[in-house]
Order: sequence, then C-alpha cells, then structure tokens
Amino acid sequence: MSPRSVLIANGPNLGRLGAREPDVYGSFSFDELTARCREWATRFGFDADVRQTDDEAELVTWLQQAADAATPVILNPAAFTHYSYALRDAAAQVPVLVEVHLTNPAARERFRHESVIAGVASGTVAGFGFDSYYLALAALSRRSE
Amino acid sequence: MSPRSVLIANGPNLGRLGAREPDVYGSFSFDELTARCREWATRFGFDADVRQTDDEAELVTWLQQAADAATPVILNPAAFTHYSYALRDAAAQVPVLVEVHLTNPAARERFRHESVIAGVASGTVAGFGFDSYYLALAALSRRSE
Amino acid sequence: MSPRSVLIANGPNLGRLGAREPDVYGSFSFDELTARCREWATRFGFDADVRQTDDEAELVTWLQQAADAATPVILNPAAFTHYSYALRDAAAQVPVLVEVHLTNPAARERFRHESVIAGVASGTVAGFGFDSYYLALAALSRRSE
Amino acid sequence: MSPRSVLIANGPNLGRLGAREPDVYGSFSFDELTARCREWATRFGFDADVRQTDDEAELVTWLQQAADAATPVILNPAAFTHYSYALRDAAAQVPVLVEVHLTNPAARERFRHESVIAGVASGTVAGFGFDSYYLALAALSRRSE
Amino acid sequence: MSPRSVLIANGPNLGRLGAREPDVYGSFSFDELTARCREWATRFGFDADVRQTDDEAELVTWLQQAADAATPVILNPAAFTHYSYALRDAAAQVPVLVEVHLTNPAARERFRHESVIAGVASGTVAGFGFDSYYLALAALSRRSE
Amino acid sequence: MSPRSVLIANGPNLGRLGAREPDVYGSFSFDELTARCREWATRFGFDADVRQTDDEAELVTWLQQAADAATPVILNPAAFTHYSYALRDAAAQVPVLVEVHLTNPAARERFRHESVIAGVASGTVAGFGFDSYYLALAALSRRSE
Amino acid sequence: MSPRSVLIANGPNLGRLGAREPDVYGSFSFDELTARCREWATRFGFDADVRQTDDEAELVTWLQQAADAATPVILNPAAFTHYSYALRDAAAQVPVLVEVHLTNPAARERFRHESVIAGVASGTVAGFGFDSYYLALAALSRRSE
Amino acid sequence: MSPRSVLIANGPNLGRLGAREPDVYGSFSFDELTARCREWATRFGFDADVRQTDDEAELVTWLQQAADAATPVILNPAAFTHYSYALRDAAAQVPVLVEVHLTNPAARERFRHESVIAGVASGTVAGFGFDSYYLALAALSRRSE
Amino acid sequence: MSPRSVLIANGPNLGRLGAREPDVYGSFSFDELTARCREWATRFGFDADVRQTDDEAELVTWLQQAADAATPVILNPAAFTHYSYALRDAAAQVPVLVEVHLTNPAARERFRHESVIAGVASGTVAGFGFDSYYLALAALSRRSE
Amino acid sequence: MSPRSVLIANGPNLGRLGAREPDVYGSFSFDELTARCREWATRFGFDADVRQTDDEAELVTWLQQAADAATPVILNPAAFTHYSYALRDAAAQVPVLVEVHLTNPAARERFRHESVIAGVASGTVAGFGFDSYYLALAALSRRSE
Amino acid sequence: MSPRSVLIANGPNLGRLGAREPDVYGSFSFDELTARCREWATRFGFDADVRQTDDEAELVTWLQQAADAATPVILNPAAFTHYSYALRDAAAQVPVLVEVHLTNPAARERFRHESVIAGVASGTVAGFGFDSYYLALAALSRRSE
Amino acid sequence: MSPRSVLIANGPNLGRLGAREPDVYGSFSFDELTARCREWATRFGFDADVRQTDDEAELVTWLQQAADAATPVILNPAAFTHYSYALRDAAAQVPVLVEVHLTNPAARERFRHESVIAGVASGTVAGFGFDSYYLALAALSRRSE
Repeated sequence: MSPRSVLIANGPNLGRLGAREPDVYGSFSFDELTARCREWATRFGFDADVRQTDDEAELVTWLQQAADAATPVILNPAAFTHYSYALRDAAAQVPVLVEVHLTNPAARERFRHESVIAGVASGTVAGFGFDSYYLALAALSRRSE
Repeated sequence: MSPRSVLIANGPNLGRLGAREPDVYGSFSFDELTARCREWATRFGFDADVRQTDDEAELVTWLQQAADAATPVILNPAAFTHYSYALRDAAAQVPVLVEVHLTNPAARERFRHESVIAGVASGTVAGFGFDSYYLALAALSRRSE
Repeated sequence: MSPRSVLIANGPNLGRLGAREPDVYGSFSFDELTARCREWATRFGFDADVRQTDDEAELVTWLQQAADAATPVILNPAAFTHYSYALRDAAAQVPVLVEVHLTNPAARERFRHESVIAGVASGTVAGFGFDSYYLALAALSRRSE
Repeated sequence: MSPRSVLIANGPNLGRLGAREPDVYGSFSFDELTARCREWATRFGFDADVRQTDDEAELVTWLQQAADAATPVILNPAAFTHYSYALRDAAAQVPVLVEVHLTNPAARERFRHESVIAGVASGTVAGFGFDSYYLALAALSRRSE
Repeated sequence: MSPRSVLIANGPNLGRLGAREPDVYGSFSFDELTARCREWATRFGFDADVRQTDDEAELVTWLQQAADAATPVILNPAAFTHYSYALRDAAAQVPVLVEVHLTNPAARERFRHESVIAGVASGTVAGFGFDSYYLALAALSRRSE
Repeated sequence: MSPRSVLIANGPNLGRLGAREPDVYGSFSFDELTARCREWATRFGFDADVRQTDDEAELVTWLQQAADAATPVILNPAAFTHYSYALRDAAAQVPVLVEVHLTNPAARERFRHESVIAGVASGTVAGFGFDSYYLALAALSRRSE
Repeated sequence: MSPRSVLIANGPNLGRLGAREPDVYGSFSFDELTARCREWATRFGFDADVRQTDDEAELVTWLQQAADAATPVILNPAAFTHYSYALRDAAAQVPVLVEVHLTNPAARERFRHESVIAGVASGTVAGFGFDSYYLALAALSRRSE
Repeated sequence: MSPRSVLIANGPNLGRLGAREPDVYGSFSFDELTARCREWATRFGFDADVRQTDDEAELVTWLQQAADAATPVILNPAAFTHYSYALRDAAAQVPVLVEVHLTNPAARERFRHESVIAGVASGTVAGFGFDSYYLALAALSRRSE
Repeated sequence: MSPRSVLIANGPNLGRLGAREPDVYGSFSFDELTARCREWATRFGFDADVRQTDDEAELVTWLQQAADAATPVILNPAAFTHYSYALRDAAAQVPVLVEVHLTNPAARERFRHESVIAGVASGTVAGFGFDSYYLALAALSRRSE
Repeated sequence: MSPRSVLIANGPNLGRLGAREPDVYGSFSFDELTARCREWATRFGFDADVRQTDDEAELVTWLQQAADAATPVILNPAAFTHYSYALRDAAAQVPVLVEVHLTNPAARERFRHESVIAGVASGTVAGFGFDSYYLALAALSRRSE
Repeated sequence: MSPRSVLIANGPNLGRLGAREPDVYGSFSFDELTARCREWATRFGFDADVRQTDDEAELVTWLQQAADAATPVILNPAAFTHYSYALRDAAAQVPVLVEVHLTNPAARERFRHESVIAGVASGTVAGFGFDSYYLALAALSRRSE
Repeated sequence: MSPRSVLIANGPNLGRLGAREPDVYGSFSFDELTARCREWATRFGFDADVRQTDDEAELVTWLQQAADAATPVILNPAAFTHYSYALRDAAAQVPVLVEVHLTNPAARERFRHESVIAGVASGTVAGFGFDSYYLALAALSRRSE
C-alpha cells in the first residue's frame, strides 16, 4: 500500500530558521526541519510534502489543493496566525488540519496570543520546537488508524 | 456605441465557490458566477471583466489599473474585507467602487462584522447570493445613465 | 395577476428629505422618493406601500403586520439602525427584509458603523441614494421570480 | 376586602407570542398569557391589569401611573431591557417592580446579557416561560403578606 | 414688535417633577417649571412654548417643526440623552439648540456621563436646577441681540 | 408517594448570614434560611437537602451528584457567580438548575453584574431575600407538575 | 454693600485668545474677555478677579485660596479638563464652582469629550463663546439671590 | 532501569467524562482515559500517575510535589484554565509542564479562548480527544531522549 | 495583660518560599517567615497565628473565624488577589485587615496589577519582602495603641 | 554618627490637610503631619526633610536632587499618582522610593485605582492615615540596617 | 572605496505617487522619489536600491535578503504598517531598519495611528514628504560614520 | 544674512541625560546635547536656542512665544508626550514643529506607545539618540530652502 500524503505547510519567515533569532527559534535550518519531517512522516506511514512560503496567496492555494485532494494538513501559519482571515477561510475547507507552532505564542508578545486560525483547526500543538511537527504527524497517524 | 467596461474583482477563496461550504455559499461554481455576471453586464450595457485571485497584491494591482482607466469596479473583497488596509488604500483611488458580499456578514462570526473597505466604497450590497452582483451592476448602470 | 405587495418602511427624520442636510441626503423630498419607489415597484410587478414614521412603535407594528401577511419589507431604519433592539426583534419576524440606507454609514460618524438590525436582515443595500430602494426592489423581484 | 391591584406591563413584540419564534417563546399566545396571569393573580388575591405595548412612551406612562397609585408592577421590558433609559427612569419611581423574562437572556445573544432596568428593579425572575409571571405574582403576594 | 418664539422641549419623566426623586430633582412641579420658563422668557423678549413628552417620536416632531420655523430650541432630552440617535438626527436640523439638564450628569451614574445629543447642540447648560433653563434663555437672548 | 428530592446548594460566606453585612443580607441566620427552605419544600412536595460550603470543589461535587441522580438544583453561587467556570461546567450537567440570589446583583458593585453561571441555568430568581428560594421551589414545583 | 468677590480662573493657552485658532476660539483677545467679564460681573453685583495661567500648580493654588475665602469660582480648565486630577481635587474643595468652555467640547476631537473636572463642578456651561462666562455669572448671581 | 515518573493531572469535571456532554467530550469514561494513559506511558518508558480532582488546592499541591521531585507534568486544567492564577503560579514552578485539552477551546465559547496557564507551560496540545494525552506523553518522551 | 491575637494568613504557593522563583521571592523559607513574624509580633505585643494554605475555602474560613473573634488580620492573598471574590466577601467581614505582598505587583505581569481584595482592606503594604509583614504588624500595633 | 537624610515629598492639595474633606483625610493639618514625620524620622535615625508642593515640576526636581544625593524618598504623589508620567520618570531615578497614600485608593473613585508611579516604586504603603508615613520610615529604617 | 549599499523598500500603493490622492501625498511620482533617493544616497556615500511592491511576500523577501547581506534598510511599509506581522517578523531580522512615512499617520484616520512595525525598527521618520527618505539616509550615514 | 532662529525645547527629566538610565538614554549629558545641537544648527544656518524644563507651563510658554515669533520648533516632550493636552494645544499654534525622541517609544513600555502631541506635529523623528535632533534640524533646513 502506498503511503498516504500529508502536506506540511509553513508560513512567512520560517524559511529563515537557523538564521532568524536563534535564541527563540533554535539553530537548525529549515532544510533540517524538512529532512526531519520527511523522515518522521515515513516512520508514521506518510509521504510528507514539506513546503514553505512567505506568500499568503500561495499558502491559501496549497490549502485549497489539499482540500480538493482530501490531504490532511499540518500548518504552521507563522505571523499569518494573527491576522490572515484569508488563510482561515482556506483552512476551514481542509477536513483535517493541525496548527503547529515551534514556540509557545502565549509566552511571547501580546499580539501573538490570539490565533485567527485556531477556531477552524482540528487541533493545535505548540511550544515543542521541531517536535511540534513530530507530534502533529503522530496525531494524524493515530487519527487515520 | 461600444459597451462600457466594468471590473468585477473577487478576493480569496471565491474561486472555490460550489466546493466551499455550500450551505453557506451555495452550490454554484465561480465559473457559473462569471457567466452570469457577463450575461447580466451585457444586459446593462457593460463589458464585464470578471476576475478572481487569492493574492492581495494582484487585487491591489487590478484596482490601480481600474483607477487609471477610470473603470468602475465591483469588488468582493472576501476575507480581505476584515484586515487589508492595502486593499482599502487601492480602493480609495477608484472613482466608483461597489462592495459586494454573497452572504450577510452581520449574521456570521463576530470578526466578519467589520469592513475596513466600506469606508471608501461608493456603496455596498450584501446578502443576496449571486444577485448581489446583479444589483451592483444595476447600480452602476443607473449611475451612468 | 394582481401585483404582489411590498412594504417600504422608513424610519425617523426621513420625512425631512430635501430639507435635512441636503449635502448629505440630496435635495429631493420624501414625496419624490415615494413617487419613484411606487413607479419602480410597478415596473418590477409590485404594489408598493411606502410609509414613513418617526415612531419606533409604529415601525414595529408595520413590520409585525408584514410578518402576518408575509409581505416582503424594504426597511430604512434611519437612526433606529444603531440602537432599536425592539425593531430588530420585529424585523426578525419578517421572512424577507432588505435593509437600505441612502448614504454609506461606514463613511460617516463612528456610531453609524454598527447596525443592530443587519444581523436579522436578508440583505443590505447602502450608499446609492434613492437607487438603494430601486436595488432593493430589484432584489425582491429577482428573489420571487 | 377588595383585591389589591397589580400592573403586569409587557414591552415590544410580546403581543406576538405564539406567532413569533415559537421555538424560543413557546406556542401560546399573549391572550393565553393574559388569561393565566389574571387567574394566577386572583389566586394570590390580586386584581391583575395585564397590558402590552410596543410603545416606549406608553410603557413609561403606565409605570408613572402605577407610581402615583402605588401599584406594584411586574414588568417584562422585552427588547427595551437593553437600551431604554427612559424606561429605567420610569421604573425607578415605582416602589415595587419585578422584572420578568420568559427566556433566559444570559443564554442568548450577547446584547441580551445586559439589562439597563435591573439596577432599579426590586427583583428579577427569568427563564421560566409563562411561569416567570406566576413567580413574580407569588413574590408580590409574599411581600405584601 | 412681537416677541420671538422659543420652544422649550422636555423629554421623558420630566412631567413627573416634584413627585420623582425630589432629593435629586427638587420639589417643584413641571407646572411650576413651565410658569417660570414663561415668565423668564417674557423678560428676555421671548414667547416660550413649553412642552413635555415621554414620546421620542413626538419630541422628534417638535424639533422638526422648530427646524422648519427656524425657532430656537431649548432641549432637556432627559433619559433620551444617552441613546436616542433619532433625537440627535432631529436636533442636528435645528439651527440653534441649547441642551439643558437640571442636574449635573457627570456627578451621577456612569451611563449618564455620555450625551449622544451634545455633539450637535450649539451649547450646553447643566447642573443649575430650574436655573439651567433661565441661563439657556439668557444665552438665546444674548445671541439674538 | 414519597416527596421528590431537591438540592439547595449555597456558596461561600452564605453560612455567615445574619452576622455578615446585615444591612445587605438581612438579620436572619443560615439556619433560619435552612429551616424555612425545608418547610417551604415540604409544602411544595419536595424533600429539600439544604447545604452550604465555602469550597468550590465541594459545590462542584454536589452538582455532579445531583446530575447523576437527576435531582433538580437550586443554586446560590454567591461570589463564585462572578468567576468560577468550574462551577459553570458542573452546573451545565444538571438538567434543571435555578440560580438564586438574596440581593439584586445589578444594584451592587460593578463586578457583581456579570454571572458566569447564568448562561447554563434554567432560570434565575434574584432580589427577594429568603423568598428567592421560595420562588425557586415554586418554579420547580410547577415545572414538575 | 460692597460687591461679592468671584474668581474667574482660566487655564492653559487661553491667554492666547485671538491669536490662537481664531476660527475655533474667535478673534477677540483675552484682555477683551477680561474686560467683558468685569463689566458683566459688576452688572450682577460681583467684583470679578479674572486670571489666566498656563501653570497647573498656580491654578490649583487659586482654587485653594477661593476655597479658604469661600469665593465662588468660574473655571475654564482648558486642556487641563481632560487629565488634571490635581485640578479636580482642588475644585472639589470649592463650595460653588461653575465649569465653562468657550466651545462645545462634544463637537470636537474625541479626547475633548471627557472632563475629569465635571464630576465635582456645581454646574457646566459650554459652547457659547464669551457668553459662557456671562451665563456662569448669571448662574452665580441667581444662586446667591 | 526503572521507568521515569510522570504526573498526569486533571482538573474539575474531568472525572465526569462519558457522562458529561458526550457530544463534546466523547463517550469514554475517565477510567478509560486513565487506563489508556497508563498504557501509553508504559510504551514511552514512563510510569504515569494519573489523577483527577475538582479541587484547585489539591491540583496546586500536586504540581508543587512534582516541582520538588522534578517530575514532568501533563496538565489538563479544565475550567481552571480560564481563571486560576493560583494554578498558574504552581505550574510556573514545574520544570516541564505540558498543557493539554481534549477539545479545541478556540472553537468553543468566548471565555474558553484565553488560558491563564499557557504563558508558563512548556507547550500545549489541544483538540485531539484522548490522543492529546498520547501526544503530550510522546512530547515528554522525545524531550528526555 | 495577655498579648492580643493577630492572624497572619497566607495564600497559595507561599508555603513554597525559598524553593519558588528565589530571584523573585527571595531565598528564605516560609518557616523562616513564620519565625520572624512571630518574633516581630511578640515585640509589638501580639500573639501571631501564622498560617498558610493553598485552599481558597480554608482561607475564607480563617477570615470568617477572625471576623467572629474580632481578630485583626494580615492577609497575603497571593494569586487569589486577582480573582477570588469569595475571599473578598470574607475579607469584607473582618474589621481590620491589612493586605500584604512580598513583591510589588505593579512592577510584574499585567494581571497582577489588579487586586479584587484591596477595595475591602483597611490598608495595603507591598514590595518590602518579609518586611511587608513587619510593617503590617507595626500598623496594627499603632492602630490599637 | 549624623542621622541619614530622607526626603518626604508630598504632592498637590496635601498642604490642605485638615481643611480638605476631613471625613476622607482626617482633621489634622499638614503642619501636624510634618511634625510627626520629623519626630518619627528622628526615632528611626533619620533627618527628615518634609516638603509639599502643588507643582509637578518642583516635585520632579526634588526627586532628581534626591537621586543625585542618593537620598531615599517617601513620596505621596496625591493626584499625580494617576497621570504624571513625568513624575514616574523622575521616580525611576531614585534608588529607594516608597509610595505612600493616606487613604486606600482602591476603595475610592475608579480613576484612583491605577497608579502610574507604582511600577517604579520600591514598595507601597496605603490606607493607614498619617501612619502610612510612619510605616514608610520604618521600612527605610529596616532596609538600611 | 565603493559606496555602501542601502535598500529603500516601499510598500503597497506607493508606486501610485502623484496619481493617488495628490492632496495627501503630493504631486511627484514614484520615479521622481526614486531619482531623488538615489541622488541623496550618492551624496551620503550610499548606493541606493530603491524598490516598490504591492506584494507583502516580496517585501518580506527583500528584508530577508537585506538581513543576509547586512544591508541597512529604509522601509516605508505603507498600509502594511497597520497589520502585517509577517513584515514585522522580517523587519526584526534586519540589523538597522528605519521606518519612514511621507505623511504624519497620527494626524490621519484612527487605524493609521498604530504601527505593528515600529516596535522592531531602529528609528522612525514621519511627516516630511520625500524628505522623510532624505532624513533616513542621513540617519544611516551618521550611524555608519 | 543672519541665521534663522530655531527653538529646541526639551521636556521633563531630559536635563538628567547621562545620569539617568544610561543604558536607555546614553552616557552623554544634556550639556553635550546642547553643544552638539548648537553646532549642528550653525552648520544648517540656524541659531539654535536649546532649552530644557521640567515645567509643563514653561514649555507651553516657550511654544507660545515661538508661535508669536513664527520660530520653528524642535520639541522633545519627554513624558509629557503621553498626557499633556496643554502642550498639545500649545504645539498646535506653532507653524512648524518637529517632535523628536532619543529612543524608540514603540519598543518600550505600553504607555509610551501613544503620543498626544503627534497629531499636531509637522513630523516626527524617533529612535536615533542625539541624531534625532540632527535630523530634525536637517528637516527644518530642507523645508526652508
């Protein structure tokens, strides 16, 4: 049986991992995150399509395609978390969508405390660094058992 | 006399009509909306250019071009309604712009009650499904009589 | 076939059209608005009953009667828009009710930005002067086709 | 000894009971409410004057008359609950006034959670359907024992 | 030369002066207020038409008539001060309108601190008991000198 | 037929009745309240279990037990009214729960105006002193007739 | 009998009358205001001490002295109106204090709508230009008759 | 090597799982949750101590003990999430604490959108039903590898 | 003469002094605080009963007992400061109650800036570490001189 | 050894003690406060410089001088407490500054509940009348032991 | 020595300068702004790369590239100023970033008063028209001297 | 040609530069700032009058004098930025006024994010240390070219 697809979609500035505020986001790069996600996905029987974009429209498109293909989505909306209702409307179309965050937004600046995405997510995982993605994959895996 | 141009510009996730939450947005597709708008426009003596994009910048560009060409605009800003001040600034340049919504935002989630676009629109039509566009075309038609 | 009835109900100070802030509301009188609405209604196959009152209770009564008779309503709540929950409760009983405004409330004082009526209206048309009523009639006409 | 008078005053849209949103307000009519209130009042030794109006001024007048006659009042302010400070000022003159609601406003829309009347009421009974009136009568009866 | 007309319009519950909370509003009746206003008006060369109503629509009508006749108005909006945008819209049509209050609303309950009328009044006099009317008449007198 | 059970649960500081702010809460003690409630309950065909606790967890437990036993509850949440979401979640499990208050919270400090319990109560009785309990018993009695 | 004293105290930037925003404050100077106030005061049997300062502490001192001498005060707090609680505490000591404003603050910027002084003033006169002072003097005169 | 300890602490009303709002929380009981957590913990090399209490103080004590023993904690604060600063202060002492929720609070009532605990948690997992605990255990397991 | 009693009541997590965030709360333990308070109390002629609990109900009970015995209270409500209206209602019964805090809440997180207890305290001492208790004892001593 | 200096700085209207609202602030004068403070200071080994001013700038200057001289400060900011960020910035420069209040601001008007000074104070003592100063001196004394 | 690079990045609708609201933004075009910036940059020893985009993602990319190259940035975020947290997160990576505005946002609509960018900018220059860029270049020049 | 005058006015606590929070404001003194400003002014063809005061009234006076003399002003309002409407009213009279700040208020405490002055300033320069003044001088210089 071929592995099931999963889209791991990442929002703005996440391509800068390692270079960007390493004390906040850690010193590993986005490529390393990609590699780990792929490996973890394989372990859980998924074929992970890991992408990153700084472009709201592109992220919206990816979610729409996932909705059409009924592909589950792991979404790190990054800064879009706090204002992109366009992304929210796209996320609402995806049957299974897990919102992930590397850090714990509730322990950072006030504006990071509100997520306009969370209301339409199936679930949320936040604060575990790269492991947030591992846990989201585990969640999808258990769900589809 | 050649028909006057009108731009009918649609924002994020509207290309998903029919597939997206049909209980909210109806079961007709965006292509059907396009066809109807063109037909209605012809009836009112307009040549309608119906477009949709999930991209804020593209929408902004379209409005700027309409401003240069003095083309009236019917705009369904979709989720951008609630936060895109960039779109507002573009809309403010268009001499005649009608804001339309398929649904009645005031009867939905709290965040849909505020429009950052409405303050610079000539007028608003909301809640009539596809007919919101028909009415907007009628409004433009009467205005230019 | 006899024309269908429609109630066009107007709230406080609208009887003062022409005399009241003509730079905001235009120079035509309420009688002229009435005449036009009747003519337009006829064109759309309606028999329009155009009324105006400064009295909240009277407006409530009209809506209740329309609810009993299943008459569609075009309502310009004027200043009641912003506080009359009594009117809202009455409007909620009317099967088809279109809220209209001559001007664009979103481009005026802050207190005019909120409508306590909109949440129970079928749809809204605002900002087109007298044509707001024309468009509301068109909307009802298309709905009942 | 002749029965004591009590005024049971009802605000806007309550005359529509039975017809209006029966899933919210029940299927009994205002006439039935009136009949029951009269019967209950008799049982408690009162002579109930049950009235309904959609008119804020009329309701204010009734409360003023009750104030002059020192008649206790059971008031269902309906939608006036949420904005009529005129009614509040009138209610403040009545020595004994019980605010009643058929439904539980706290379990409905956000705007129904605040009562501008409650601060000047002797007490409040809400959420028991017609029985809210029965309980209010019982309260008055016990008070005057 | 015949005396100029002035309308002294009073809102809800002011007919209850003397009976209503005498520690707040004083022990003189509305008839006494009327008599004094007439006498003061005469002294200032005015013919005062002193009226009171608990009815928002009636108050709106009076202001509209004053607007048509270009009669200056002294308005005590009473509880309407805090929510009647219908009254505000009517007041905005009157060329010269002085808002008066017997008491000092800023020293009372929180909800009395905001006036939705004040923004369209020519001026305000508050806190001097009956003399608030005297001062408003004096203001009109000086203005028309 | 044996009398039906009813739980009358009282929150923090209510055991202090008589001793605590007698000008606000009256001079009768909690024992007297208990005695009266039992007597009234008997009159209505109930067997009242009257309890008081200052302990949020104990109150939560009582409501859970009532939920299991399908016992109707009369709850005076006292200060918990304003913040105990734990109590709210417990109250939501009880099929029939009447919220009572001795005083009228709307006429006291600002923080007492909001009840986090009311949204899940069947109904509310407030402001009648001990009689609030009598009325709640009457409400239950009528409901189960 | 010697005339009674009255302090007419003016706050920051009022010394600039005539030079400052003449479209808002008129073209007469503070000296002209002083002269008129003195003349009016004489007419009302007062000896007016008209002062102006940009200094909060000086204004506080003047009010304290007036409090000691039981001199009535007419206070135009100017910009201090909106934040000077020190002035409020001083004003609270003066037995009779009338707050005056040349313009109508409610018709200007949002921050001018709130007065931290009004809660401790005997009364308020606003929006009549220099006549605001005339009316305040009239008010004091009538009070002491 | 003996398994490491982990405390799985559950707040108010969670002992009611299965009985309480099964459409929201599922039909499995707290005992079943306990059994699963223990089994999962074993799989991850932990010895899970699964507890539930409706008592804020007891929950605080458990966290303090975990802090002393340096035991990692999985905490479902239930309704305490929204107001218990006492719990927050206790949680802040625990070196590794994962906040879990069965449901997605962001998709429920407004008051459930804010967590006063999240700011001091290491991470959060919400919305996966019982699997939220599985994922939290996985997170701890990976952390301690 | 036997020393007068004083209750020194401490809220949640204060038993953790020394272990808990020593950079915020210092390195001395609660036992040391107890010892010092007793010694200081003796010096001021008091017999101090120093207690700590994480239990809101227990704290409420202690205050009620102090109210009955007319024992003055020094209360460090800890996290209860910010939400426990039950504690507030208990504190309101104690004739003399001093609120103390080890740290300065105004210099910490936003939620620590508001005290729901302060409004019913006789006075407050905050920010002096253990000495806050010394000063509170001194305050009581001077009061009873 | 010569006594250490301490500055006891008092803000606006405190010079009016005894005369100003004696029911709030007591009947003793500022001179008596000064005398007591000096005597208490001597007892604690301080040489107290007790000053009062209604002038914000003067108070700022005193704090700056104390900062230069490293003199500890006891500051009663009076009404400046609620808005003087200039005073806050000055207070932030003083190494040891105790904020004192005669009364308990939390039990008075709403605007007195917030202190813009407290965030930069070492500690606060409020509500003990003149003894607030005694306690502040005691606090400084203990600190410098 | 070759000139240092500087990126002058401009956000949405700034390409429309001259055409867009010339009374607000002046009559010069974006090309003219570009030319002036280049010339000024040369004068200050910089090689200016002047760009404009309506695309949030493109702007984010430019800032990321500048961060990698350690190029200082002058950023006019235009409407993105008020909501683009994606841009904020990108700006936070740039070592030296000056926020510029042609107009003074504080003197325009309310929504323009808040900048979500300013918190991570090195400095801000606003309100000087094209000269805002000149001054920003001067600031960079002086910084790198 | 004699150099043009410019007033460089500095608000409270700026005289303390160097001594006050050097990590925030730098280690140079106000005298050094004065010297630099004078030198820079000379370079730009200005004769700079550099002043500092902690006194709001003095600052107001300086701005009034500048308004009379039509002297451009560079104003660092320091803490007055956040509350002094008196200063705002004075600043509004000055034809050309540049608001400067040494630091970036948007990156500091929340209360520093709002400027009540900015709405009437010609422009703002913030965050460049002493260079903020240099840039303001440059701005004035370019304006008057």
